[in-house]
Amino acid sequence: MAKIKTPSESLTIMTNIVLPNETNSLRNLFGGELLAKMDRAASISAARHSERRVVTASVNHVSFNEPIPEGGIVVLESKVTRAFSTSMEIYVDVWLDDPVNQTKVHTNEGIYTFVAVDADNKPVPIPELRPETEEEIERHKAALRRKELSLILSGRMKAADSVELKKLFTEGT
Amino acid sequence: MAKIKTPSESLTIMTNIVLPNETNSLRNLFGGELLAKMDRAASISAARHSERRVVTASVNHVSFNEPIPEGGIVVLESKVTRAFSTSMEIYVDVWLDDPVNQTKVHTNEGIYTFVAVDADNKPVPIPELRPETEEEIERHKAALRRKELSLILSGRMKAADSVELKKLFTEGT
Amino acid sequence: MAKIKTPSESLTIMTNIVLPNETNSLRNLFGGELLAKMDRAASISAARHSERRVVTASVNHVSFNEPIPEGGIVVLESKVTRAFSTSMEIYVDVWLDDPVNQTKVHTNEGIYTFVAVDADNKPVPIPELRPETEEEIERHKAALRRKELSLILSGRMKAADSVELKKLFTEGT
Amino acid sequence: MAKIKTPSESLTIMTNIVLPNETNSLRNLFGGELLAKMDRAASISAARHSERRVVTASVNHVSFNEPIPEGGIVVLESKVTRAFSTSMEIYVDVWLDDPVNQTKVHTNEGIYTFVAVDADNKPVPIPELRPETEEEIERHKAALRRKELSLILSGRMKAADSVELKKLFTEGT
Amino acid sequence: MAKIKTPSESLTIMTNIVLPNETNSLRNLFGGELLAKMDRAASISAARHSERRVVTASVNHVSFNEPIPEGGIVVLESKVTRAFSTSMEIYVDVWLDDPVNQTKVHTNEGIYTFVAVDADNKPVPIPELRPETEEEIERHKAALRRKELSLILSGRMKAADSVELKKLFTEGT
Amino acid sequence: MAKIKTPSESLTIMTNIVLPNETNSLRNLFGGELLAKMDRAASISAARHSERRVVTASVNHVSFNEPIPEGGIVVLESKVTRAFSTSMEIYVDVWLDDPVNQTKVHTNEGIYTFVAVDADNKPVPIPELRPETEEEIERHKAALRRKELSLILSGRMKAADSVELKKLFTEGT
Repeated sequence: MAKIKTPSESLTIMTNIVLPNETNSLRNLFGGELLAKMDRAASISAARHSERRVVTASVNHVSFNEPIPEGGIVVLESKVTRAFSTSMEIYVDVWLDDPVNQTKVHTNEGIYTFVAVDADNKPVPIPELRPETEEEIERHKAALRRKELSLILSGRMKAADSVELKKLFTEGT
Repeated sequence: MAKIKTPSESLTIMTNIVLPNETNSLRNLFGGELLAKMDRAASISAARHSERRVVTASVNHVSFNEPIPEGGIVVLESKVTRAFSTSMEIYVDVWLDDPVNQTKVHTNEGIYTFVAVDADNKPVPIPELRPETEEEIERHKAALRRKELSLILSGRMKAADSVELKKLFTEGT
Repeated sequence: MAKIKTPSESLTIMTNIVLPNETNSLRNLFGGELLAKMDRAASISAARHSERRVVTASVNHVSFNEPIPEGGIVVLESKVTRAFSTSMEIYVDVWLDDPVNQTKVHTNEGIYTFVAVDADNKPVPIPELRPETEEEIERHKAALRRKELSLILSGRMKAADSVELKKLFTEGT
Repeated sequence: MAKIKTPSESLTIMTNIVLPNETNSLRNLFGGELLAKMDRAASISAARHSERRVVTASVNHVSFNEPIPEGGIVVLESKVTRAFSTSMEIYVDVWLDDPVNQTKVHTNEGIYTFVAVDADNKPVPIPELRPETEEEIERHKAALRRKELSLILSGRMKAADSVELKKLFTEGT
Repeated sequence: MAKIKTPSESLTIMTNIVLPNETNSLRNLFGGELLAKMDRAASISAARHSERRVVTASVNHVSFNEPIPEGGIVVLESKVTRAFSTSMEIYVDVWLDDPVNQTKVHTNEGIYTFVAVDADNKPVPIPELRPETEEEIERHKAALRRKELSLILSGRMKAADSVELKKLFTEGT
Repeated sequence: MAKIKTPSESLTIMTNIVLPNETNSLRNLFGGELLAKMDRAASISAARHSERRVVTASVNHVSFNEPIPEGGIVVLESKVTRAFSTSMEIYVDVWLDDPVNQTKVHTNEGIYTFVAVDADNKPVPIPELRPETEEEIERHKAALRRKELSLILSGRMKAADSVELKKLFTEGT
């Protein structure tokens, strides 16, 4: 498929208020609830890029930096960072937005992999991704290392056969 | 803290029926809902090992192998795989259990990191973990590599300074 | 309060997937569930404009043009359309976005009124609103007619005392 | 259709306890949650009057007078106020009932429009409504004014062509 | 406490639409979900009779006669059937109401016991109950047998010491 | 059906954290929510024993001894206690597990009856149950008395025709 798309074409913004039922006993958003929201945002970005139905293949990494309190306004922004043949890596950035105090704190980022599938649930080819901003280009490059890593950890590639990742360990960051 | 505990002391079993609201348009369990359940099971294992209140630090990897249909019985089993000074790695295995056809399929596994905290939300030391079964010993060993990897990816360790991981790339798996 | 803000400063985008639990027996999004989402989006817009805690004062009108199917991607966009002394009118537009077929259908629009309140739940003054786009200017103007109408319907103004609304009936649209 | 029914035949009582998940950060029932409950009660009234499947056509006005606290007992009472050819106006009154202090406060009222539809989702004729009590007669009369207003606001009727509403503005309330 | 109340003073009507999330894989209302709704209705009846905060003491018997389909209108009606010193027995009748086909089927009945408590969670005396209708008188009488049974089953009364229940077994129904 | 199974073959463990939405205004788990969880655990035990689809027939008794606070870890353990021709009695024990204070309190026990059904919703024969532990044997024996009682209370057996239960009242416990 020769089509080429930019990350901004898959941008998905999901603004929400943290409800009591989504919080733990400290009245902060449950890690698990946030993971579910991130998965949902990422799946919309994946569908927007691939113009296909998509399924979650793996969650590669999600960091939890700052607690998000009940009643807080959470803003998730997700974009495709790299397209492979039938799968995509998606980045989800999470902010806590406080309109009263006029602050916006970056609380989490997560990396998900989705696969585009047809009606029979078979993987299908997807458009290429051409990153535009500096951050998009950096994430696009790092996505390849993460892909290799995922293959190694799942036993589908030997560490010695990696290209990008091996460079990291033999040359340093 | 000199206390030593085994993985079985943190074993948490969470059996559940997949409800309609937790499924996507194909009537399979949403990736995000499963992530939330896994996080909850992992947090109980972490609390059982550390005997402390715990918070999610990161999700390191979750694979999605098989879809889990609506009405299916899902069994999550989580155990601590390695204890560091104040943080723990937890493995969550997920099975789809079909009592009518007498089958049990391994659908997912996920790796989470939790930190034990005191009343002021400050990290506190936790008991050591001594693995017992072969699988527990293997996962305990691999946990160290994953820890290094996480530090490198977040920029808190240089690839060149890693011990276990460097071995992997210079010597092969 | 001399501060003046534009509608785009209160723009809130809330993208979501329609879950099975939010649908009626025809598998379309329940009117009531949509009303709840619209209220939530509108409340964030109101907080962003007023930089205050806000409470719903009334729902003025919500139309239901097209059904929204289960699994569909719903995009809510809300903006303040007019600021009065302590209350604001907010417009919420709803689209059904289908990334596979590349269509985007306008399914609903709703008009809400919110009041900004202080810690004692007392109304507080809010910034003025200066509309920019043609649509914003049109909605800003019509908001005054709706305000008068609301006062008349609730018995707090006599029809004969209205300015904008009376014009409508004596001069025609 | 020659059938004639009374408002009491469509009376629907929906008693409920406000759950933590339905409250905002002040521990009062979310405006949006109440709107969803009102829509559900109104849809049952509409089905009871029309003996048909019904869909929400519009929300015409909902007022929020008093906050409803978590744990409070909410009583919704809805009745059809006027039947048009295929659509109905429904009034929903909301009370906060406190059996311990023996008080019952009227917190909200909402006006909804529903359309009766057949299996192909086409509008179908419904029974007439004959109001009985004084309040029913008053609301039945006002429903016509609201109908005209709705047509004008949506651009389907010219203000000058209204009958009841024009009277209001030229003669006073 | 000399106060005497009738069952109709505690009558609670809870009308609802069965949501997809409350159904099993046959699209019928989950037994457990219905139990939760019945408990909630019963607790309101108990509060209305006792004019106190109440807690569930036990569920004595709930029958499941007919499945309740998704989208169905469920009507719960609960009333206090007998008041003891600090506890009450409450009956909850459940109907499936179909306004389109004009049928109303009795699907379940459940018997709950609640205790009235003060601010320190201590049981407090409640008003007496004087049954009025034939059904109320019958249920009031049978409540005493069920009370004895509950005491016997929990080991707090010897079967030989029962009055009403013993009669049943020695004299027949 | 000659097959014989033990209670441990139907053992179902359901560990969970009490979420804010499941609590009443005292921040304790709602009786109704617990009933729903118990029903779900019991249904899995019934399916595991019968290797069939199952439906709830009745709830026979559920006691509420201790409140379960928000954030608490609840452990439900359910097992079949007696198999009749097509129905089963299931016991569900509930514990509140506190890993920080290292306590485990027995808060509830519930007795449910389920029926195994085929694709046409017709009852089907199920394996016999052979109890093993002392508690299992005791509960197995008492299940017969409870079965008779249920038949009598529902009017399907005369008290005078009971065997086990009559013994209880004429001979004492």
